[in-house]
Formats: sequence, C-alpha cells, structure tokens
Amino acid sequence: MSVENYKNFGASNDQYVSQFGNKGSLPLPPGKKLTIVTCMDARLDPAAHLGIHEGDAHVIRNAGGVAKEALRSIIISQQLLGTREIALFHHTDCGMLTFTTPQLQEKLKTAYPHAANEAESIDFLPFPNLEQSVKDDVAYLKNHPLVLKETTITGWVYEVETGKVKQVV
Amino acid sequence: MSVENYKNFGASNDQYVSQFGNKGSLPLPPGKKLTIVTCMDARLDPAAHLGIHEGDAHVIRNAGGVAKEALRSIIISQQLLGTREIALFHHTDCGMLTFTTPQLQEKLKTAYPHAANEAESIDFLPFPNLEQSVKDDVAYLKNHPLVLKETTITGWVYEVETGKVKQVV
Repeated sequence: MSVENYKNFGASNDQYVSQFGNKGSLPLPPGKKLTIVTCMDARLDPAAHLGIHEGDAHVIRNAGGVAKEALRSIIISQQLLGTREIALFHHTDCGMLTFTTPQLQEKLKTAYPHAANEAESIDFLPFPNLEQSVKDDVAYLKNHPLVLKETTITGWVYEVETGKVKQVV
Repeated sequence: MSVENYKNFGASNDQYVSQFGNKGSLPLPPGKKLTIVTCMDARLDPAAHLGIHEGDAHVIRNAGGVAKEALRSIIISQQLLGTREIALFHHTDCGMLTFTTPQLQEKLKTAYPHAANEAESIDFLPFPNLEQSVKDDVAYLKNHPLVLKETTITGWVYEVETGKVKQVV
C-alpha cells in the first residue's frame, strides 16, 4: 500500500495559517545571522530544541549533518544573505554510524544492476566516530577558502535520548 | 563584532529538555515513512507548517530545497530507514530566484582570487521559475534509477507571505 501522508498536509497547514500572525512580513535574510547545519533524522526538531523561530536562522539538514554537502548552501547563506555564524550538530544513534559507502553501494548494485555506475559514483559520507566527525566538519569549514574568515563556527552533539545539546568544539 | 548566538543555546535547550517527555524512546526509522525536502530559508518551519512531530519524518533542507543535492540523503532514507514517500517544497521569495551561478562565481573569484578554481567548481543550482523548479525536481526524483519506484512523490509551493502550502504536482 502506498504511503500518502501528503493528504493530511492541508488540514495541518490550515491550523498553522490560522495562527500565522505577522510572519508574512519577515525579511529574507536571517535575523540572527545564523546558519544551523544538522542531520535529517526524524527525532530532531532543531527549531524546538534550540529556541529558533521563523525568521531567525537558515537550517541546512542532510543525512548526518555533513559539512561538505552543506558547503553550497553555506556560501549562498553568507555571500547573498549575510549570515556570519555556523553551528553544526551531529547526534547520538545516527544512521551514519552504522554503515560504510561500499556496503551501501553493493546493496544498490545488487538491487539495480542497470544503475551500477550511478551507485558507484555516490560517496554516502558516513562517519565511524561521532565526536570526531563533529571536530572534522568544523575543521573543514574553518579551513575552507570560500567560508568567510570572520565566521563564528561551533560544533555540537545532540543526544536523542535526552534532548540535550553538548558543545564539542 | 562577531555573531555568537551559540551562547544562548544552553538556556533554550534546557527548556526543551524539561518538556522532553518520553521522546527518548522514539525509534530511528521515521514513523510516517516520510521524507520532506525543503529550503534552508529562515522563514520556514516545516515541522510547524505541516504538523510534523519528532519521530515522524526525515527533513532534508538546503539552499532552494534542491532534489539533486538531496539524492544522497534520500537513498539513505529509503534503503536504510524505510521511507516510501517524498514531499518536496520550494517557496515564494526564494533567494534561488535572484541570481545565476556565473554571477556568484564571479563574486567569489573577485573576493578570493586564490580560490578561483574552487569557486568555479561549484554549481549553485539556482532556478529562474518557482513552479517549474518544483515540477523539474519531482520529475528528477521520479525518473532517478536509485529512487524506489513505489515512492509517493509530491511537489509543493510554500507561500512565505501567508504560511500556506499549495500542491503543484
């Protein structure tokens, strides 16, 4: 049976719209000059666990909260929309700690032999160590020639077991 | 003066943790088998405007809500964590409607002549037409050989002026 959550979006959205207030006049550039990078994980609600509201911050999310894939968005955020701070979060019990790129490539090549080249071309960017991955990603951003030197960059772990954030770097 | 929002994360997070309840026992796979793809824009709070709660859905966000860059995360979401629906959102007044890749590359090359090659290597993936960009991204996902054929895929526009979502495809 097909999954069709989209049929419920309208009713949920009506409720949000009824309490929208004056948010329609918020400007495009983030008010707090802040960019959050974090994982797509379903258990994370970064707005809620950081006290971020509409208009405050760019939020970039991908599998892992990987800095390398966030680079395009970060450059746009800084160069066109004026942000000057990056806070990067990885989290406990992350799926990215559970596999390697060759393992996932093999799985895909078995399922889709006609797309083997496509599967082999993708680096899935998993990481074997949580705290080290935060340190590595912060170092990547601090050293990148296209990330503004004056950027405040911090790295954090979010604990899915408790909801707590812990600064790593 | 440096931007240091991170100094306020602790206090905001304490409040979230105090109301965390039993969310610590939520499983890793998204309960609704749903993946949301949307823009990093600061005015968007997809959890709020779609009625999504912790544990429900993967949320992938990048500059524009671009499907191509979300592909790595979508494959991980489907192959390792069982999602079977993708809802892709772009939005009105998006920064991605305001520039071209050569324009941003030129800006970067002028500011960082030592990183000219790096700047030229990045496709910033802007789009000139909002509704067409949603249709194109949905078509990209529907036709991609590594996206599961049984996936329900819908495309939407979010109106930053009103908070409303409108299905495009």
